Amino acid sequence: MAGLMEDEVFKAFSTYAAIVILKMMLMGPMTGFYRHARGAFSNEEDVSGKSAEEKKKQLRTHPDVERVRRCHLNDLENIVPFVMVGLLYALTGPELSSALLHFRLFAGSRIFHTVAYVGALPQPSRGLSWILGMLVTFSMAYRVLSTVLLL
Amino acid sequence: MAGLMEDEVFKAFSTYAAIVILKMMLMGPMTGFYRHARGAFSNEEDVSGKSAEEKKKQLRTHPDVERVRRCHLNDLENIVPFVMVGLLYALTGPELSSALLHFRLFAGSRIFHTVAYVGALPQPSRGLSWILGMLVTFSMAYRVLSTVLLL
Amino acid sequence: MAGLMEDEVFKAFSTYAAIVILKMMLMGPMTGFYRHARGAFSNEEDVSGKSAEEKKKQLRTHPDVERVRRCHLNDLENIVPFVMVGLLYALTGPELSSALLHFRLFAGSRIFHTVAYVGALPQPSRGLSWILGMLVTFSMAYRVLSTVLLL
Repeated sequence: MAGLMEDEVFKAFSTYAAIVILKMMLMGPMTGFYRHARGAFSNEEDVSGKSAEEKKKQLRTHPDVERVRRCHLNDLENIVPFVMVGLLYALTGPELSSALLHFRLFAGSRIFHTVAYVGALPQPSRGLSWILGMLVTFSMAYRVLSTVLLL
Repeated sequence: MAGLMEDEVFKAFSTYAAIVILKMMLMGPMTGFYRHARGAFSNEEDVSGKSAEEKKKQLRTHPDVERVRRCHLNDLENIVPFVMVGLLYALTGPELSSALLHFRLFAGSRIFHTVAYVGALPQPSRGLSWILGMLVTFSMAYRVLSTVLLL
Repeated sequence: MAGLMEDEVFKAFSTYAAIVILKMMLMGPMTGFYRHARGAFSNEEDVSGKSAEEKKKQLRTHPDVERVRRCHLNDLENIVPFVMVGLLYALTGPELSSALLHFRLFAGSRIFHTVAYVGALPQPSRGLSWILGMLVTFSMAYRVLSTVLLL
């Protein structure tokens, strides 16, 4: 078993996979932060300590909370496929330099995507970083399919 | 490391995993397409080039966009578990014919599910394809648990 | 390939991964159950057999359905990272006792989280179980990064 973690490409994959997963997970606490800062909750039990009037007012959606939640969902839609396809890609034995290029481009594009989304930067900044991340995953999926195709 | 990708079952798993992940990822651009075609956006910066009146009108939800988004979320809820359980299943060393049956049934059921969802085909077409996909994943999870159980 | 599934830590990982994925998948049928029990659907074709008046009334959201759906999404946001990071963690060769502690804490915290969410238990029960699950994943990610870091 030790074999996998002695492979340079697999080590690089593990590093970048952990980084982008951690980035994705931080959207959870960020949602919690905005829920408290903006007073916008979705569950009755989350506002139980408050007055009846306050309760009613805080059981609502807020644009800032919804923005972070959309960013989180976009991460799930893009980072999860990257990690799953990237694992298979790393096992096809690509060149280390080529693998690193894929992993770095993806991690960079997704970190920028979050900044662009949460910061509401003018388009097409968010759109382009989203597309770049997808192209990296498509490129890895292409290598997986062209190496191992067995239907 | 090369060992894994020389195994027939693992090759078949990699092929079908890549296919269903790519299918899932295509829901992203499809959402973008419907957003532009129907003029229904969720972020201010996505309508920044438009007149004030047009802006207001296009910051809305549209049933066609929401339908594609529900289909995408359903993919996340079903395809991601398939890939994660399927990886463990492939490592338990099943018969190639049995593994291929699982993978093909799942891929077929999810592609049909998308057609049924986006095309709004009469029920129970969508419901049955959803259930079939889940049964395949349950069957693989059963083999994983009955082979390796260590609590 | 057989090597991986002979490793005790990897067996334990596979067991707990399968358990938490199955738990997550059960949220799908639970959503379906509440949709039927509460008469709250989101697709026209899901209410096609009903009278026009009934149709209109049942194309709506219901708090109980939305609660289960939020719980399901929270599972996706937390269980999927656990499985992906946990796989890499298991490959770094941790002590079995330490690995089991991580896996058991996570599985326990997420099962309790579901009970707290669907049952609307008073806070901070749900919040604490959510945080505990995240801390387990962070701890595993820390070990992965400190063992294999290759940027």
